[in-house]
Amino acid sequence: MAPIKKGILERLNTGEVVIGDGGFVFALEKRGYVKAGPWTPEASVTHPEAVRQLHREFLRAGANVMQTFTFYASDDKLVNRGQALKMTGTQINEAACDLARQVANEGDALVAGGVSQTPSYLSCKSESDVKAIFKKQLEVFMKKNVDFLIAEYYEHVEEAEWAVQVLKTSGKPVAVSLCIGPEGDMHGVSPGECAVRLVKAGAQIVGVNCHFDPMTCVKTVKMMKEGVEKAGLRAHYMVQPLAYHTPDCNRQGFIDLPEFPFGLEPRILTRWDMHKYAREAYKAGIRFIGGCCGFEPYHIRAVAEELAAERGIMPPGTEKHGMWGAGLEMHTKPWVRARSRREYWEQLLPACGRPLCPSMSTPEGWGVTKGHADLLQHKEATSSQEMKHVLDMQKKAKSSA
Amino acid sequence: MAPIKKGILERLNTGEVVIGDGGFVFALEKRGYVKAGPWTPEASVTHPEAVRQLHREFLRAGANVMQTFTFYASDDKLVNRGQALKMTGTQINEAACDLARQVANEGDALVAGGVSQTPSYLSCKSESDVKAIFKKQLEVFMKKNVDFLIAEYYEHVEEAEWAVQVLKTSGKPVAVSLCIGPEGDMHGVSPGECAVRLVKAGAQIVGVNCHFDPMTCVKTVKMMKEGVEKAGLRAHYMVQPLAYHTPDCNRQGFIDLPEFPFGLEPRILTRWDMHKYAREAYKAGIRFIGGCCGFEPYHIRAVAEELAAERGIMPPGTEKHGMWGAGLEMHTKPWVRARSRREYWEQLLPACGRPLCPSMSTPEGWGVTKGHADLLQHKEATSSQEMKHVLDMQKKAKSSA
Amino acid sequence: MAPIKKGILERLNTGEVVIGDGGFVFALEKRGYVKAGPWTPEASVTHPEAVRQLHREFLRAGANVMQTFTFYASDDKLVNRGQALKMTGTQINEAACDLARQVANEGDALVAGGVSQTPSYLSCKSESDVKAIFKKQLEVFMKKNVDFLIAEYYEHVEEAEWAVQVLKTSGKPVAVSLCIGPEGDMHGVSPGECAVRLVKAGAQIVGVNCHFDPMTCVKTVKMMKEGVEKAGLRAHYMVQPLAYHTPDCNRQGFIDLPEFPFGLEPRILTRWDMHKYAREAYKAGIRFIGGCCGFEPYHIRAVAEELAAERGIMPPGTEKHGMWGAGLEMHTKPWVRARSRREYWEQLLPACGRPLCPSMSTPEGWGVTKGHADLLQHKEATSSQEMKHVLDMQKKAKSSA
Amino acid sequence: MAPIKKGILERLNTGEVVIGDGGFVFALEKRGYVKAGPWTPEASVTHPEAVRQLHREFLRAGANVMQTFTFYASDDKLVNRGQALKMTGTQINEAACDLARQVANEGDALVAGGVSQTPSYLSCKSESDVKAIFKKQLEVFMKKNVDFLIAEYYEHVEEAEWAVQVLKTSGKPVAVSLCIGPEGDMHGVSPGECAVRLVKAGAQIVGVNCHFDPMTCVKTVKMMKEGVEKAGLRAHYMVQPLAYHTPDCNRQGFIDLPEFPFGLEPRILTRWDMHKYAREAYKAGIRFIGGCCGFEPYHIRAVAEELAAERGIMPPGTEKHGMWGAGLEMHTKPWVRARSRREYWEQLLPACGRPLCPSMSTPEGWGVTKGHADLLQHKEATSSQEMKHVLDMQKKAKSSA
Repeated sequence: MAPIKKGILERLNTGEVVIGDGGFVFALEKRGYVKAGPWTPEASVTHPEAVRQLHREFLRAGANVMQTFTFYASDDKLVNRGQALKMTGTQINEAACDLARQVANEGDALVAGGVSQTPSYLSCKSESDVKAIFKKQLEVFMKKNVDFLIAEYYEHVEEAEWAVQVLKTSGKPVAVSLCIGPEGDMHGVSPGECAVRLVKAGAQIVGVNCHFDPMTCVKTVKMMKEGVEKAGLRAHYMVQPLAYHTPDCNRQGFIDLPEFPFGLEPRILTRWDMHKYAREAYKAGIRFIGGCCGFEPYHIRAVAEELAAERGIMPPGTEKHGMWGAGLEMHTKPWVRARSRREYWEQLLPACGRPLCPSMSTPEGWGVTKGHADLLQHKEATSSQEMKHVLDMQKKAKSSA
Repeated sequence: MAPIKKGILERLNTGEVVIGDGGFVFALEKRGYVKAGPWTPEASVTHPEAVRQLHREFLRAGANVMQTFTFYASDDKLVNRGQALKMTGTQINEAACDLARQVANEGDALVAGGVSQTPSYLSCKSESDVKAIFKKQLEVFMKKNVDFLIAEYYEHVEEAEWAVQVLKTSGKPVAVSLCIGPEGDMHGVSPGECAVRLVKAGAQIVGVNCHFDPMTCVKTVKMMKEGVEKAGLRAHYMVQPLAYHTPDCNRQGFIDLPEFPFGLEPRILTRWDMHKYAREAYKAGIRFIGGCCGFEPYHIRAVAEELAAERGIMPPGTEKHGMWGAGLEMHTKPWVRARSRREYWEQLLPACGRPLCPSMSTPEGWGVTKGHADLLQHKEATSSQEMKHVLDMQKKAKSSA
Repeated sequence: MAPIKKGILERLNTGEVVIGDGGFVFALEKRGYVKAGPWTPEASVTHPEAVRQLHREFLRAGANVMQTFTFYASDDKLVNRGQALKMTGTQINEAACDLARQVANEGDALVAGGVSQTPSYLSCKSESDVKAIFKKQLEVFMKKNVDFLIAEYYEHVEEAEWAVQVLKTSGKPVAVSLCIGPEGDMHGVSPGECAVRLVKAGAQIVGVNCHFDPMTCVKTVKMMKEGVEKAGLRAHYMVQPLAYHTPDCNRQGFIDLPEFPFGLEPRILTRWDMHKYAREAYKAGIRFIGGCCGFEPYHIRAVAEELAAERGIMPPGTEKHGMWGAGLEMHTKPWVRARSRREYWEQLLPACGRPLCPSMSTPEGWGVTKGHADLLQHKEATSSQEMKHVLDMQKKAKSSA
Repeated sequence: MAPIKKGILERLNTGEVVIGDGGFVFALEKRGYVKAGPWTPEASVTHPEAVRQLHREFLRAGANVMQTFTFYASDDKLVNRGQALKMTGTQINEAACDLARQVANEGDALVAGGVSQTPSYLSCKSESDVKAIFKKQLEVFMKKNVDFLIAEYYEHVEEAEWAVQVLKTSGKPVAVSLCIGPEGDMHGVSPGECAVRLVKAGAQIVGVNCHFDPMTCVKTVKMMKEGVEKAGLRAHYMVQPLAYHTPDCNRQGFIDLPEFPFGLEPRILTRWDMHKYAREAYKAGIRFIGGCCGFEPYHIRAVAEELAAERGIMPPGTEKHGMWGAGLEMHTKPWVRARSRREYWEQLLPACGRPLCPSMSTPEGWGVTKGHADLLQHKEATSSQEMKHVLDMQKKAKSSA
């Protein structure tokens, strides 16, 4: 029988660093199990071995949290815009809980049941309609007895509050992260105010995930922390950013970049960028530090290696790496052995090998969000008339850029 | 019982396109199972589930060849420079054959037993010493009855000839690929002459793998083809390039780039770059088209999608993609739906998001190879005196750049 | 006898666009007549033909203002840090007035006498000491009867106020421009507040010059305009920016960029960038539109061509250009003739041909200004001990970047 | 009376370094006196003060050669494609000789009369027709008694041979430079063979000018030198490259780059690039070292400063510079004083400040030259039908890039 593990709040209350895992939808898209567009997690049912393997890799990289692969696993999302999946949300949520628990048992990790933003909210459904969706997912998490809950990837703080309110009814610890940057949520609510509202809604852990690069996300969480402290409240903080450099983003984040989602490769962070991120996050007082889209297991390992002294432990996967790439001492070529040291990698300015490409892009910035007709979702596949409309809008947006 | 599959030569003789898999050492390094530096494949024994999963992903992406994960699995490499693995080369080779066969049986793929260059050759050991190493690996491949053999990643054509000569004794089809570019092998033998020598040594399939980007590799194989045809010989051609843009390489390839191996991210090819690569390779008359370091399953899937018409089949993994990213039609955001079309991605010039970085690097170019004292290998760990020496050389090389 | 020209305020009061000239110190440094470092205008005395020629070129390009080449022509600057010029400030100021008047008489241009910031202010001299310097220059301008006065290139609004107060005593129109960006002056005073203080000090025209690229300068003047209007005051606005792209600047402007002053070439604006600048400045309500460091005559011509319709006149120099480069229709090569059109040049993203260089730099940001010991000036040449000190500081600044 | 100066061959025969001047058409285009497209030198007649001033600046920068501003001053070019100049070639050639002589007399410089390629050759006129054009220009040069002759900017070695044959009849020393790169002339003749043919035609000095950046030009002249020496001949060598970085050029040189001629700014060389160029040219055995399009006086001064030790003299203009920018020791800002040293500028990798732009371009490469109908010239202005045709071709060329 596995020993009883310390819970998420026990850890954070004592100042422990908790390492999160990386984003599943992007990693599994590259491996062939997730479809970019709907981004739904049916692989939890159809290809459990692939999902289990990714959990194991993050565990080996040092992650203390196994998030159930239930992103966008709400019934309204599973049937959006012509997607015709043969399984229900409940089936996916249950399968995902079992996979996460199985791997969590193999190491020092907790299981976090996750909910995320819904097409229903985007389509202006009522508070009770949207909350009903979260409740249905929560029922599975309670039945499977996850260790804590995460409401993540919310563009509008209002929907995140609703999610927190539902999750709080469980009595389990609740973490919540918005996918916003320093400019605030899609309706213009500042990071500080968002955080205050979420703490008041009952979340013990607040922060951001996805949409922006690590340094931007750390900056945003700092703004949240300042807001919470100024309001005389208390919270723990989490950050799970992109593994992409996005200095050119506007409020909507990387969704607006022309490279999203199939041309982001030149923006991928190196492991050394991750060292800087982990240090900055730690210095900002954030203690739940993980990743989102673009993170591969070696990125999480780099976070765990950077904070090895603070945590008093190296991740298992370091046996195949060594601090600052010490394994290169075993390379056959002398000039590669000469790279087995921290200064070399810290000072490297890596080239992209693409001299015909720019270093930054102009984000699209259509400036529409929840409440705009173009954001209404439906079950039917996107019609050719709708496609013509969006192509026209794209053309117009480009010419005015 | 599985139906009898067509062999590699049967396929190539009828003009069929054979899709190779991607490189295992880089993919598994990112997943936490291979150590950069020694780059040895002990994971075949220690973490079979991780190796099996990667095979499956390439199969799902459309690969017709499962290469045994036996790169650098020769006894002299397993104990080089202080590495102290607890298993023998034979154990690794056997485990790798079983894994490849198991997954090959799940689809339309053949098993290829692989050998690669040895530290013994770099250290100027005799022909018979080096051949003995290949013979030992070949024994396992015969016992496990692989479908054909690949000698790959040779920097010196002489060692590749020795490998072919050994593999030919098996009676199985032999493919051979050098890790060279248009400038030829490390001793200055041109691609055309290399190819002629390898065909004369008995290889039925010749080409290149690793060290250079796709377009450079296709160009090199074209030079090989011209050499073979000019010599009045016949062969099939293969190409398994890097998934990194390397326009700035010199003869030694990406090993010399300052980003190797831990800062290559900005150079990673997109799936759309892979479409261009597959088309160019096909137009050049190459029919065994795969990948090497940096290739992830979605890169192989892009190759298979580009050549779907020629092959008369879509890869299984396309169910989670759609041609030219058609799945984006199901995205909730209208401006992302507007990207679900070929023209958009073909014309994109992706930004790296790193305005402080250059677009090309200066390769180191120490100009030493087999025969030079610095290339002699040994069992002992790299000493601090050796490290001091290489750091001095690196400093000197940089200041004269 | 030349007809009586309309004065600067007459023009601006009727909404006329006044085209300024470009920066003399940078242009004449490239031509060999100004020393980077001291940046003093002794060429007005020593090489009048060179200064006259540059005036003529700007006149031909469309400029309506001939600024006397008297930048840094104060006695305290002429003998700073070991410079031993053989002429006095008065000699330079007089010679410069004569040259400007001579060329102004050849076309529709006014003569503006110019003063600029002083080493005395940087060295914390008293208000009366600093004002005495401006008074001495003003005496020459009055004797030579310039058409109006410009106090330009002030990093601290306080010194600019003193200059305006002195110049106002002349009864001539007074323009004043700071070399600040959106972050405000070196002591942290915002652009809006700066502008209000300068209008209150008596300036009829306020704005910015130098230190930042055109778009940043236009943005800063907009902030000034908002400040002035919010305060219920009135003014005309001027902008004379750099001809360098400087998106990476901090508060100190291009002085802090590592490329200043001898590596700025890749940042030089094209004539087409100038069209965009002129349009943006015009749309922002700015009517005195010129240039500073980096501007060559063709840059001013582009400004005049963009605003030809609004001004009802083309610059004389257009005879050697044509709108949007129409002269290319006469090129011998057909593919160059194909470029004789607006769309071509508007859409061009010009490459730098330097793949080993980044696209942005990290400014130094030592964070010291007037009031700090390192800013104190003296007559003696910089000592080797001083040089050692600044090199140490540079090293420290770089390592903490 | 001026002392008798050493002739060009006397200088070169004794191993002296001769510094050339920079390109006039580009420099005067920026100053407003030359029209890009026809690129003709009528300013020698219409604005002598502007031409004289530029001569003086190059003299001051260290140039030993004043090339008459007679580029494209042949009668057939003056009336090409609708240009209607009011002066004859003879008038321009005479005025240009007078200006060059006047300034040469002010220092240690020789006057070189220059001829260049003709529209007649491009339009397939006969050898005698083309030679008649050169003869007519030569008559002026003889009458004005220039010191030596330069035939420059030839894309086809055949036309250059014709020019040399005509110029040789004068008895004056003849230099000749092609505007070609390592790929050879527009008809595919290699640099080595071109040089041999020109030496055989009678030239004492051979080399290249324009079309490529300094390092490419030095490389090309090296190939010429190897060709000449291999043929057992002797010659002096000259190089007058662009002041633009053009690593992305094909055979046609910078004419094919999309930035030509109005978007080349980001490619401009710094003075430090010029130091490297001068050193490389010197090391290659080239002794006539100057510049062409893009060179400003400070570029030539940098060449003269780099070779000051070899020449035993500093250029006059150094009084306003100091070796490696020593004048910065007098700057008021300490961090700029810290830049007054060689290492700083040698190691700088200057940023372009344009993160939306690429670092290299794709040249157009229409692949047509003399002999193709599209290269035929005529007196009439380019018709709208012709324009439509070239726009169609441009579109086609771009889509196949």
